[in-house]
Amino acid sequence: MSADPAGISPAQARSRFRAGLRVPTAGWSAGHAQANLIAVPRDYAFELLLFAQRNPKACPVLDVLEPGNQSGPALPDGDIRTDLPAYRVYVDGELVAEPSDVLEFWTDDLVAFAIGCSFTFEAALQDSGVPVRHIEQGRNVPMYRTNRMCRPAGRMSGPLVVSMRPVAPEQVADAVRITSRYPSVHGAPVHVGDPAALGIADLAAPDFGDPVDIKPAEIPVFWACGVTPQAAVMQTRPPLAIGHAPGHMLITDLRDAELVVP
Amino acid sequence: MSADPAGISPAQARSRFRAGLRVPTAGWSAGHAQANLIAVPRDYAFELLLFAQRNPKACPVLDVLEPGNQSGPALPDGDIRTDLPAYRVYVDGELVAEPSDVLEFWTDDLVAFAIGCSFTFEAALQDSGVPVRHIEQGRNVPMYRTNRMCRPAGRMSGPLVVSMRPVAPEQVADAVRITSRYPSVHGAPVHVGDPAALGIADLAAPDFGDPVDIKPAEIPVFWACGVTPQAAVMQTRPPLAIGHAPGHMLITDLRDAELVVP
Repeated sequence: MSADPAGISPAQARSRFRAGLRVPTAGWSAGHAQANLIAVPRDYAFELLLFAQRNPKACPVLDVLEPGNQSGPALPDGDIRTDLPAYRVYVDGELVAEPSDVLEFWTDDLVAFAIGCSFTFEAALQDSGVPVRHIEQGRNVPMYRTNRMCRPAGRMSGPLVVSMRPVAPEQVADAVRITSRYPSVHGAPVHVGDPAALGIADLAAPDFGDPVDIKPAEIPVFWACGVTPQAAVMQTRPPLAIGHAPGHMLITDLRDAELVVP
Repeated sequence: MSADPAGISPAQARSRFRAGLRVPTAGWSAGHAQANLIAVPRDYAFELLLFAQRNPKACPVLDVLEPGNQSGPALPDGDIRTDLPAYRVYVDGELVAEPSDVLEFWTDDLVAFAIGCSFTFEAALQDSGVPVRHIEQGRNVPMYRTNRMCRPAGRMSGPLVVSMRPVAPEQVADAVRITSRYPSVHGAPVHVGDPAALGIADLAAPDFGDPVDIKPAEIPVFWACGVTPQAAVMQTRPPLAIGHAPGHMLITDLRDAELVVP
């Protein structure tokens, strides 16, 4: 393995994960978009796509594979069943396995969705001098269920899940301005300050991911999170659903630069 | 009827169409978004929504009603089966009727899509001093099938259809700049000049709508057109599909101002 995973191409990265490497993907294949994976049976695909269309900040669709297909423009030479470092398999909404590939679980009526990931805008924040605490601390981003319900679509419903990054007061405007240029990876924050207004009781106890340190005077800033569609799918309890293990994303051939609005 | 349909609210306009008024909607309910209607059976809805997601410039989805539903946020008090001034009904891809309501054709498994319409950005062009020829001439916009195929989705495939507006050379940049602020109503042009490159043999013979005068030195500018999804649906020949009659649009409660990108 080359010294720096940032310099590895998406196709090479997928090839290594296909061969069995199991590592978080933060920092891999710099400049290329990483994506949340959620695959559901064809019978649920319309409702999930409509849920995404109705809640675009939380569920920005980067690509959808044809029913049963294992590759597509986001991973042209790839296989969605093997090319992520780790998966989560849900049966009737219950987590049953966290394997390194899903060949034994995959069925031909599964439709795989690639949902945009905030890794893209975090790189832009750092490039612009806005520090990202959970990266500084080597942790997963803290994520919280909120009291805001997404607009449902048929059987698909659930709360908005948000990620939180503490930002210095003098950099909040920059953080808004920079992330708003990335609408296909969650875009601008949904909320600035006041966790209680979102129904979040304790920032130190996230529902997913890790807590991070918040310095005095820093403002907690909340972005819609790609865990939202997974939470909705879990709540809907389809007979089978496959997602990525947290932090173990699909590395796509899409370039971050393609996702920015000028 | 009040003297100026521009001042009539969307709910009032829909009420008049529901009562039987059959007129083109250009200029009605100024400031509110008008939409293309296309309704297909539930079995085709995922593929149509995916086709739209993959071809967002041609198929910007403003809203999708729940299967069998007749109202939704775009027409909160309304009935999609009666609230347009005129419809087109297709059986197995063939036009069979152009009625003022579709009560006798509607089935509970139809899913209605509201697709963004260039009326929104035409108002912005005119407000910015960029004349719109077909409005000046009191005609329907000229539309052309191109030699560019859309990215297909399952059974749904078809050519990109474009609308054309002639623009003075010194205003082409303005036309691009202004319309690019409206990504949910087709956004920036897909092509500037050279109809032959799009496979268009004769601008005076559009495939849909009316030809318009092009002055010497004016550049033909082409935008992705909301007829594209209808063309794909017709090519797919579902057992039943319902659209609007050309120029007889759904007037939604959405405001044009909500569709602009700052």
